Amino acid sequence: MSATRYTYLGPEGTFTEAALRKLPESATRELVPMVSVPAALDAVRHGEAAAALVPIENSVEGGITTTLDQLVSGEPLMIHREVLLSITFALLVRPGTKLSDIKTVTAHPAAQPQVRNWLASHLPEAVWESAASNADGAKLVQEGRFDAAFAGEFAAATYGLEPLFTEIHDADNAQTRFVLVGRPARPAAPTGADKTSVVIWLGPDRPGALLELLQEFAVRGVNLMLIQSRPTGEGIGHYCFAIDAEGHVSDRRVGEALMGLKRISPNVRFLGSYPRAEVRLEDLSALRHGTSDAEFVAASDWLARCQDGRF
Amino acid sequence: MSATRYTYLGPEGTFTEAALRKLPESATRELVPMVSVPAALDAVRHGEAAAALVPIENSVEGGITTTLDQLVSGEPLMIHREVLLSITFALLVRPGTKLSDIKTVTAHPAAQPQVRNWLASHLPEAVWESAASNADGAKLVQEGRFDAAFAGEFAAATYGLEPLFTEIHDADNAQTRFVLVGRPARPAAPTGADKTSVVIWLGPDRPGALLELLQEFAVRGVNLMLIQSRPTGEGIGHYCFAIDAEGHVSDRRVGEALMGLKRISPNVRFLGSYPRAEVRLEDLSALRHGTSDAEFVAASDWLARCQDGRF
Amino acid sequence: MSATRYTYLGPEGTFTEAALRKLPESATRELVPMVSVPAALDAVRHGEAAAALVPIENSVEGGITTTLDQLVSGEPLMIHREVLLSITFALLVRPGTKLSDIKTVTAHPAAQPQVRNWLASHLPEAVWESAASNADGAKLVQEGRFDAAFAGEFAAATYGLEPLFTEIHDADNAQTRFVLVGRPARPAAPTGADKTSVVIWLGPDRPGALLELLQEFAVRGVNLMLIQSRPTGEGIGHYCFAIDAEGHVSDRRVGEALMGLKRISPNVRFLGSYPRAEVRLEDLSALRHGTSDAEFVAASDWLARCQDGRF
Amino acid sequence: MSATRYTYLGPEGTFTEAALRKLPESATRELVPMVSVPAALDAVRHGEAAAALVPIENSVEGGITTTLDQLVSGEPLMIHREVLLSITFALLVRPGTKLSDIKTVTAHPAAQPQVRNWLASHLPEAVWESAASNADGAKLVQEGRFDAAFAGEFAAATYGLEPLFTEIHDADNAQTRFVLVGRPARPAAPTGADKTSVVIWLGPDRPGALLELLQEFAVRGVNLMLIQSRPTGEGIGHYCFAIDAEGHVSDRRVGEALMGLKRISPNVRFLGSYPRAEVRLEDLSALRHGTSDAEFVAASDWLARCQDGRF
Repeated sequence: MSATRYTYLGPEGTFTEAALRKLPESATRELVPMVSVPAALDAVRHGEAAAALVPIENSVEGGITTTLDQLVSGEPLMIHREVLLSITFALLVRPGTKLSDIKTVTAHPAAQPQVRNWLASHLPEAVWESAASNADGAKLVQEGRFDAAFAGEFAAATYGLEPLFTEIHDADNAQTRFVLVGRPARPAAPTGADKTSVVIWLGPDRPGALLELLQEFAVRGVNLMLIQSRPTGEGIGHYCFAIDAEGHVSDRRVGEALMGLKRISPNVRFLGSYPRAEVRLEDLSALRHGTSDAEFVAASDWLARCQDGRF
Repeated sequence: MSATRYTYLGPEGTFTEAALRKLPESATRELVPMVSVPAALDAVRHGEAAAALVPIENSVEGGITTTLDQLVSGEPLMIHREVLLSITFALLVRPGTKLSDIKTVTAHPAAQPQVRNWLASHLPEAVWESAASNADGAKLVQEGRFDAAFAGEFAAATYGLEPLFTEIHDADNAQTRFVLVGRPARPAAPTGADKTSVVIWLGPDRPGALLELLQEFAVRGVNLMLIQSRPTGEGIGHYCFAIDAEGHVSDRRVGEALMGLKRISPNVRFLGSYPRAEVRLEDLSALRHGTSDAEFVAASDWLARCQDGRF
Repeated sequence: MSATRYTYLGPEGTFTEAALRKLPESATRELVPMVSVPAALDAVRHGEAAAALVPIENSVEGGITTTLDQLVSGEPLMIHREVLLSITFALLVRPGTKLSDIKTVTAHPAAQPQVRNWLASHLPEAVWESAASNADGAKLVQEGRFDAAFAGEFAAATYGLEPLFTEIHDADNAQTRFVLVGRPARPAAPTGADKTSVVIWLGPDRPGALLELLQEFAVRGVNLMLIQSRPTGEGIGHYCFAIDAEGHVSDRRVGEALMGLKRISPNVRFLGSYPRAEVRLEDLSALRHGTSDAEFVAASDWLARCQDGRF
Repeated sequence: MSATRYTYLGPEGTFTEAALRKLPESATRELVPMVSVPAALDAVRHGEAAAALVPIENSVEGGITTTLDQLVSGEPLMIHREVLLSITFALLVRPGTKLSDIKTVTAHPAAQPQVRNWLASHLPEAVWESAASNADGAKLVQEGRFDAAFAGEFAAATYGLEPLFTEIHDADNAQTRFVLVGRPARPAAPTGADKTSVVIWLGPDRPGALLELLQEFAVRGVNLMLIQSRPTGEGIGHYCFAIDAEGHVSDRRVGEALMGLKRISPNVRFLGSYPRAEVRLEDLSALRHGTSDAEFVAASDWLARCQDGRF
C-alpha cells in the first residue's frame, strides 16, 4: 500500500538506504529502492509512495543537482525531514581475500575523493574501475568481476562480502545530507530547532535582488544556513537560489521574511519546514532582540491600536 | 462649545492664525489664541478644544522644539492635518507714516534672519528692538511705542495699521509647517499622498539601532521625508527621533515598517497619518517594486497556503 | 598676544568659563569672555584668539543650534577638544541673607527646568525674573536688584556672593558638552578613544541618502555617537546632518567611511578628530572583526599584489 | 615552445576547441587537447603551456564544478579571457547514411538534455549509448561502432563524417562559458566592459558574512553578475563563494570592495579581471552616483587635506 511505502535512491546497500534506516518509522515501512532520484520522487508524485529519501547535499561534492532540479520544477513536493550521515567506507571482499590478493578495486566515482589517499598508501598497484553505484560495485565483487569494492560497511551482508578495512575516509567530517520528500501537507509543528527551505528565481535584470533577498531575512533576524545558486536553463545569468533558513514557517519572523521574498519575486517555491538533524547546542543561536513571536504579536497589537486611534 | 473650538499659538495676527485660516473648516470654528504652544495643546488634552494649530518646523530655524517636546511627552495627541505657509513680511506702520519717518522697528527675534538684508538697504539707521511676537510688535506700533513692525500683512487690519512694504524676505522658500493636533482617533482615510509621523526612543547602548530603524523602512520601500533627533533629557547620548515617512498607517508597507520600529524599541509613539500639504507632482515617487498593498496581500495569501500545505 | 588667548561664551562666572578652566592649558592662557558664540568664534576666525570654548550640546535642551550653525557655515573651523560638565546650581545670595529673606530670584531661562522643583518646595512664594545669563543674574544680586540668583557655585567669588545651597538639580545627569574650536590644523595624534565630527548636506531629491550614509559607517564597523539634523535654510526638506563617529580621521576605517560620505555628497565638512571627554571603560566598544588598521593595511597590500599579478 | 602553446579540454572536435578557435590569437598558437580539465590546467601550472581553455559555466547544467574546484585550490592561476559559445548540435553520420538507416546514436551524456525532444520526434526507435566526449562519439561513428553521433558541426571534418541535421537544440539560449586561464600576471588594461572574478571562503560560524560580503559591493555600487556557492570539503555548512563582479580590479570602486572582502575573510582568492564576452549595450549599467574613479580620487584628495589640516 502506497501510504506505508517509502522509495529511496537504490540499489540496496547504498548510503541512502543506511540513512533511511536511521529514521525510526522506517521499521514499519516498505522500503523500495529506485534506479534514480527522479524515479524515487515520481513515485511520490504519482501517489505510489508516501515519501522518498534522496541525497541533497554532500560536504565534498556540494549540492546534488539532480535532486535540487527535481524539487524546483514539476509538481510541487515538500521536505518533511532531513537525515545527516557521516560517510566512511569499508573495503569489502569475498570471504578469505587478503590485502595482498587485491589487484582490482571498484566503487562509484564519487567515492574516489574519499579513498584516494588510502588507496595510494595501502594498494598503490591496484587498478581502479568505476561502478554505477557503490552497491553495484559490491555486487560485482560478489560475482567475481573485481577483487574488492569500497562501500558502506552495511552493504557487506547484502552481498555476502566481508569488510577487510572499515572507517576509510580521506577527509574528516565527510557527510551527506538526505531529505525525506513527500507531497505538500501542513508542516509538522515547530520543535524549536527547525529549518525552512525555499527556492527563489531571480532574473539577470535586477542585479541587486540577491542583496534585497538577504536583507529580508537579516532585518528580521533570520539566519541563513545555506544559499545555493542553480541555473534555470533560460541562459547564462538566469539563476534560482535554494535557501535554508533557521526557523519554522509558523514563526512570525520567518513568515514575514518569506512574504518579503514573494514580493521580490513572485516566482518562489516553499519546500518545507522541518526539524534540523543532529543539532549541537552551539548551533542554536539566540534570537536577535525584537524578533520573537511574542514581540511580533505585541507590535501587531500596537499597530492595530494606532490604526483604530486607541493609543 | 469645545467640539467647535480650535486653539492656536497666539496672539491674533500671527502667522499661525494665518495658517489656521487656510483650513476651510476654520470658517465654522471658534478660533482661540493661546499664549504658548503648551497652553494651546493642553486645551486639547483637557477637552476644552477639539484641536490646536501649532508650528512644528521652520525652514530657517529647524524643528520647533517646544512643539516636538510637547508631542512626544504627556498625554498622547495626534496630528490630523498639516499646513504649509510661505513666510514673507510686511512692514506695518500707522496710517500716514512714510519710510523717512521710521526711526525704530520691532518684531519677534525669529523674524530677523528674514529681514536683515532688507533693513540694511532700506532703513540702515533704524534701531531694532525685539517683541514677544510679531503681532505684539504690531500692537506696540499701534500704541505708538515703535514706528514700524515686521509682521504678516494680514496683521495690519487687526491693529489698525497699513502695510508700507510687502513680500519682504531675505531667503526665498522660507516656509513654516504647522500641524493641527487633536486627541487620538482613527486616522482619516488615505488620500494617496499621505504622511505618517512617529517618534522612537533609542538608547546609547545600541549604536546600530538608527541604521536598523532606517532599514525597516528601506526594506519595504518606504521613503522618509524627515528625521530629526531630540535629546530625551536622560543624559548626553539619549535621543529620540521624530520621523515623517511617506504613506499612511493603513498602507501595508507602512504598517509593517512601524511594527518593525516597535520591535526595535518598544518606546515608540505614533503621531498620526494625514494628507501631505501642497503636494507637487514630482514629489510623488513611484512605489518600489513589490511594495504595493496588492503585492502584500498576495504574499500574505501565499504564506497562508504554505502554512496550510496547499501549494 | 593672540596665540595665547582663548575666547569663551561669557560673561565671567558662566558654566562655559567653568568648563574652560577644566582644561589644564587654561592656566597659561589669557581667557577672554565674549558676548555671544558668533563673537567668540569670529575672534578665532580673525586671528585674534587661538581658540574659543563654546557649548555645543545640552542633555536637556539638545544641540546648541547657534554653535552648530556657526560651525557649518562661514570660514572653516576645527574642533580640537571637548569638555563635559555636569550642570548643578548653587543659590547665591549676598553675605548674611537667610532663606526666609528671599522674595525674588533670577537666572537665565535655561536654568528653569533644572531648578523648578527645588523652587516649588523651598521657595514657593518667591517671584522669578529672567536674566540674560546666570552670571548676569549673580551681578544683579550683587547690585541689590534681586535677593538670590541660581548660578554655578564658582560664580560666587566673582560677584562677592555666597552659596546658600549647592548641588541643586531637578534632573540627574544634566550635562553640557563644550568644544574648543580653533583654526584648521593637523588633528592631534589618536589617543585610542577619539571622536570625529563631520557635517554633510543631503538634498530632498535623494530620500535614501541618509541610509547610504549610515551604511558607509556600518560597513566599516564605525559606530556613530550622535546624529543631528539641521535645516539648511533652503526650504523644508533640505537638511544637513551633524555626525559624531567613534575613532580618528587617521584610522583607516574612519578615513574610508569619510571618503564614502564625500562621494555621497561633495558637500561635506570635516570638523575635527579629538579625544573623547570622560571615557568610561564600558563605552569603549571592541573593534568589529576586519576593521583594525592592521587589517586595512593587509587588505591594501593584497590588492596591490592582485593588481600587479603577484599572487 | 610553451609560450605559444595553449591546452584545452579535448579531444579535438569538442565545443571547447570551437570556443578556443573564436580567439583571434589561436591562429598563431599550438593548440593541444588534454584528457581532462585538471590536465589542461596542470600543463599551465607546470610551465608547459601559456594558457588553457576550459569550460566554467553551462546555462543548462550550471557551474562546471571540476573547473571551479581546480581554480580555487592548488597553485594560483588567473583568468585572462572569457568566451561564450552557443551550444547546438549536428547529427553526424558516415557519408551516405540516411535517417532511416540510423539504429544507434551516441554522444556525451551532457548532450542528452539538449537533444532528447529532437530524438523522440525524429528517431524514436534509436538506441542511445553514451560516449566519453562528443568528439569520441564522432570517432566511434567513424569506426563503425555507432550509426550517428551528436556533436558540434565543426567535428564533422575531423572525423570524416557529414552533418545530416544541424542546429539541433531543445532549449533556446543554451550557452557555455569558457575561460582562458594562465599564470598570475598583471591583468590587461580595463576596456570599459570588464568583469572581475574572485573566490571567498566563509565559515559556518558567521551566518551574516554573506550579507556583509554583498554589502561591500553594494555600498560601492558594484553589480554582481554571478554568485555561486561551493562546498569546501570541510563539512556541511562550509562554503566558498565564486563571484563575478562588474568592473576591473584597477577601478577604485572594485578595488575597495575587494579589500572589504579580504577583511571579512582573509581567505579570498583573486581570479582575474578581463573583458566581458559579447557585451550587449543594455548590459552596461550606468555607474551609480559617487562611484566613478574621478569621484574616488576627489574623495581621497579631500581626506588627505582633512588629515593635514588644510581645509
